Amino acid sequence: MAAAESTAHDLIAQHRPTLDQALDTIRTRAYWSPHPEHPKAYGGEGSGSLSMAEGKAAFDALLGTRLDLGQPGTDDFVGGEVSPYGIELGVTYPHADADVLLPAMRAGMRAWREAGAELRAVVCLEILARISARTMEFAHAVMHTSGQAFMMAFQAGGPHAQDRGLEAVAYAYAEQVRTPDAAQWSKPQGKRDPLRLTKEFTPVGRGVALLIGCNTFPTWNGYPGLFASLATGNPVLVKPHPRAVLPLALTVQAAREVLTESGFDPNLVALTAERPGEGVAKTLAVRPEIRIIDYTGSTAFGDWLETHARQAQVYTEKAGVNTVVIDSTDDYKGMLANLAFSLSLYSGQMCTTPQNLLVPRDGITTDAGPKSYDEVVADLAAAVGGLLGDDARANALLGALVNPDVKARLEAAAGLGEVALPSREVANPEFPDAVVRTPVIVKLDGTKPDAEAAYLSECFGPVSFAVAVDSTGDALELLRRTVREKGAMTVGAYTTSDDVAEAVEEVCLEECAQLSLNLTGGVYVNQTAAFSDFHGSGGNPAANAALCDGAFVANRFRVVEVRRDGA
Amino acid sequence: MAAAESTAHDLIAQHRPTLDQALDTIRTRAYWSPHPEHPKAYGGEGSGSLSMAEGKAAFDALLGTRLDLGQPGTDDFVGGEVSPYGIELGVTYPHADADVLLPAMRAGMRAWREAGAELRAVVCLEILARISARTMEFAHAVMHTSGQAFMMAFQAGGPHAQDRGLEAVAYAYAEQVRTPDAAQWSKPQGKRDPLRLTKEFTPVGRGVALLIGCNTFPTWNGYPGLFASLATGNPVLVKPHPRAVLPLALTVQAAREVLTESGFDPNLVALTAERPGEGVAKTLAVRPEIRIIDYTGSTAFGDWLETHARQAQVYTEKAGVNTVVIDSTDDYKGMLANLAFSLSLYSGQMCTTPQNLLVPRDGITTDAGPKSYDEVVADLAAAVGGLLGDDARANALLGALVNPDVKARLEAAAGLGEVALPSREVANPEFPDAVVRTPVIVKLDGTKPDAEAAYLSECFGPVSFAVAVDSTGDALELLRRTVREKGAMTVGAYTTSDDVAEAVEEVCLEECAQLSLNLTGGVYVNQTAAFSDFHGSGGNPAANAALCDGAFVANRFRVVEVRRDGA
Repeated sequence: MAAAESTAHDLIAQHRPTLDQALDTIRTRAYWSPHPEHPKAYGGEGSGSLSMAEGKAAFDALLGTRLDLGQPGTDDFVGGEVSPYGIELGVTYPHADADVLLPAMRAGMRAWREAGAELRAVVCLEILARISARTMEFAHAVMHTSGQAFMMAFQAGGPHAQDRGLEAVAYAYAEQVRTPDAAQWSKPQGKRDPLRLTKEFTPVGRGVALLIGCNTFPTWNGYPGLFASLATGNPVLVKPHPRAVLPLALTVQAAREVLTESGFDPNLVALTAERPGEGVAKTLAVRPEIRIIDYTGSTAFGDWLETHARQAQVYTEKAGVNTVVIDSTDDYKGMLANLAFSLSLYSGQMCTTPQNLLVPRDGITTDAGPKSYDEVVADLAAAVGGLLGDDARANALLGALVNPDVKARLEAAAGLGEVALPSREVANPEFPDAVVRTPVIVKLDGTKPDAEAAYLSECFGPVSFAVAVDSTGDALELLRRTVREKGAMTVGAYTTSDDVAEAVEEVCLEECAQLSLNLTGGVYVNQTAAFSDFHGSGGNPAANAALCDGAFVANRFRVVEVRRDGA
Repeated sequence: MAAAESTAHDLIAQHRPTLDQALDTIRTRAYWSPHPEHPKAYGGEGSGSLSMAEGKAAFDALLGTRLDLGQPGTDDFVGGEVSPYGIELGVTYPHADADVLLPAMRAGMRAWREAGAELRAVVCLEILARISARTMEFAHAVMHTSGQAFMMAFQAGGPHAQDRGLEAVAYAYAEQVRTPDAAQWSKPQGKRDPLRLTKEFTPVGRGVALLIGCNTFPTWNGYPGLFASLATGNPVLVKPHPRAVLPLALTVQAAREVLTESGFDPNLVALTAERPGEGVAKTLAVRPEIRIIDYTGSTAFGDWLETHARQAQVYTEKAGVNTVVIDSTDDYKGMLANLAFSLSLYSGQMCTTPQNLLVPRDGITTDAGPKSYDEVVADLAAAVGGLLGDDARANALLGALVNPDVKARLEAAAGLGEVALPSREVANPEFPDAVVRTPVIVKLDGTKPDAEAAYLSECFGPVSFAVAVDSTGDALELLRRTVREKGAMTVGAYTTSDDVAEAVEEVCLEECAQLSLNLTGGVYVNQTAAFSDFHGSGGNPAANAALCDGAFVANRFRVVEVRRDGA
């Protein structure tokens, strides 16, 4: 057995059970994850992974270094990341000459295609395993680029992101093996001999895929596209957000290591960082070599990509306005606690955080008696205040504001209406320069035209609007209009009425939005679990794709058939 | 059991075995069809289908009538089809007021969604069964709109088109049931109670689908998009080519009958015909209600749709330039006979007909000894001449030219180079007005820049270019360039060399084109079989989708999830 064959054999033996479990789970959509989300699972004898302390040390050792990935066509090393916690990372990364790098990335495509779907899948799983072993190092990299608190950076940036990557590999594999490698075709011709053909079917990648990373969830939002493209035979060029390069640079490093060790061209995965204001994504996106683009970010640039990058398949997650309809509840405390957590987590800087809370102005019925609009809003404000009253807990939940724009929006929000809960500045003793703020809740009258401009725009950050509406029926109409016009990654609703539940479900089915109903426990509207929950629907303006489904992978490759006479 | 439930039960009992066989065959890609392609299978006691004579009578009875489909928003009846065989059809069809019809088409969406994937699939199969029973009537409708000869109109417009429709239903069903209807999700929390959610998943259609039909294969090219959209929960508005309305109008009629009988809104499938020069496709394509478009036709309008109908998923099959590389053969006679048939069938008016035959100018090796370029071309011309020497056989193979543009192109082609085989006018005793022509073969020098304009454009119709190239290597480079720049629905190659075979395969894999290698028997490069062969690749400029695969169906619907606390 040749060395490469032996490696392939080993990788399949090692990872096929995980792939099979992932394939099974995307069908059942039960709970499963191979990536532990408790810090204690990392490090220690035989674990093969860095402990929390080792991860911190590995991260510290990266600071101020040049991350030379050994890529062709590197014309410079650039970088200027400043952590939302105040640290200057001082890491520099390759800046690519695309005219050299892109052809070099295509050079390995034939061998990668010839490897076939299964070997591509297990190579991807090995990359994820290497990343998983460095989860604690990634946790710090995500924390100090996104501003997420450590625990969230570890969980969402580590195991949850790895889950989403694995999920994409499973979908990609399943899609490719729907067509067999070969077929014998024999068509009866009555008394004459049958017509016979031998057919071979090969999944072929489309070309170089471009991953345009985001600032807030560089790994979680990046891995689905990266692994879906790679697993379907495409080289992937990673262009991280300039403020969140490190997590994706480490990802590219791990991928290049594994590709090299398994006998493939490391240039199948490459990174390009950019200089401030260079806007390299715009230049790269329309190059003829780029045939797939994955993007998470603003609606403006997402729309630009969809309009101009016509040579590519473009998958976008853009802005949206997430709504929670509050009609009634049989667990008032649970509802308030659940919402308070949803609004607070990562200072509301999730694309899934609720923004508009629609409450009938005549109030709602609850297990604690009827509550007026003002009471509901005051009680929610108190719940958020209570949750974040302790600075240590507030820091652990909120993290830091990711950039000055968020802070500016937060400050401006107080002027949009009556402030039900003012934002509070929280000191971070470990990182005195971190900008930590609790959410603001602003009361708006849903029938006032001047309020509409506020609640019908995405106000990304720790800003929520408690919108008074005339009735639950009006809330549903506003929900429908919001999803249709502005898009939504999530919708929440609280009701004890079967009729209202059915009506809100119907709006979500018709407008294509993912609905969480009556969440009062430890699952939040802004969280989705890989293998089970869809992230976005791909059917409203917030995103043209969902994570993850068949549509997310099926058009990243094509099947080429070669047929010959005879059996 | 209610009436609707009983109908659903019956339809499932009746059609589920066929659906299962289709699902199995798209996985094995072996030969299968439930639609017989021999005329004798139609008609007779207990067959439930029209015989050839009954089909002719049914077609004759349609002539000169108004086909009132009972659609809302019909503001006029229009029609002006003239058969390529000279008959004026005189049938008029509904012309729609889209402002009335489109909302009416959306009205049935909820019930259609709630029916679920399986019931939608078997309703589609029942529609196909009704169409199958009228195959002989459709045969005449296809013949007298496309100009295909009767046997081809019967086979390609009947059973083969129905196969492609069924294939699309199978893919659509398989795609929708990849996600279960419901799931229980339970996430362990150490010593605490697990987190538990109940999840429901519903495939939801995107909105109204628009099918823009073509002149040459109204049913074969129309059914995949029509049935893929309908089976995934979308209403379908059919806008036929003005010269080929009848086959799709009969299709809509059958669909509306079955929808009504099975308790659904017939307006889920509707037709709109247009007045001469109205260009209604352009107006409809950009309406906000239209969320899916399927189109077969010119590159210019396909590109226009892709650019402007941004609110819709757009699936296009456009023009291409199909190449056959002739390097060597061990069955010279078989090759010539196979190519002669491919060039002649339906007067070369197939999107899959070879156009450019690339032959090394120093000649090729064959089992009949070396043959010079001139000899190969002369022998091919003789083979075509022999095949079409008898007028009756010529009429049966060629059919009629579909429109005056094809005739004009054919006449102009003789001026592009040395004519190796002149086109011959064939008299049709049954239809004296039919324009029947044999193919022209024109010799071109592949190295001459002035020849390039000819062989690098699609010359749709019975025109082939025998292009002299310096070597097989040059042929492969020209093949690559042609596919990359102009697109191709098919590629053919003849070679006895393993190295050349591998090289041509590699070009097709890299440029994403479907390859037929060394066909010398009764299968032709321009024919593909549903359930087994892909029609187009979706990866070169000739088409952005393939018939049929996961990508063709996966984005016609989205999955909406509703999750609730608790198990």
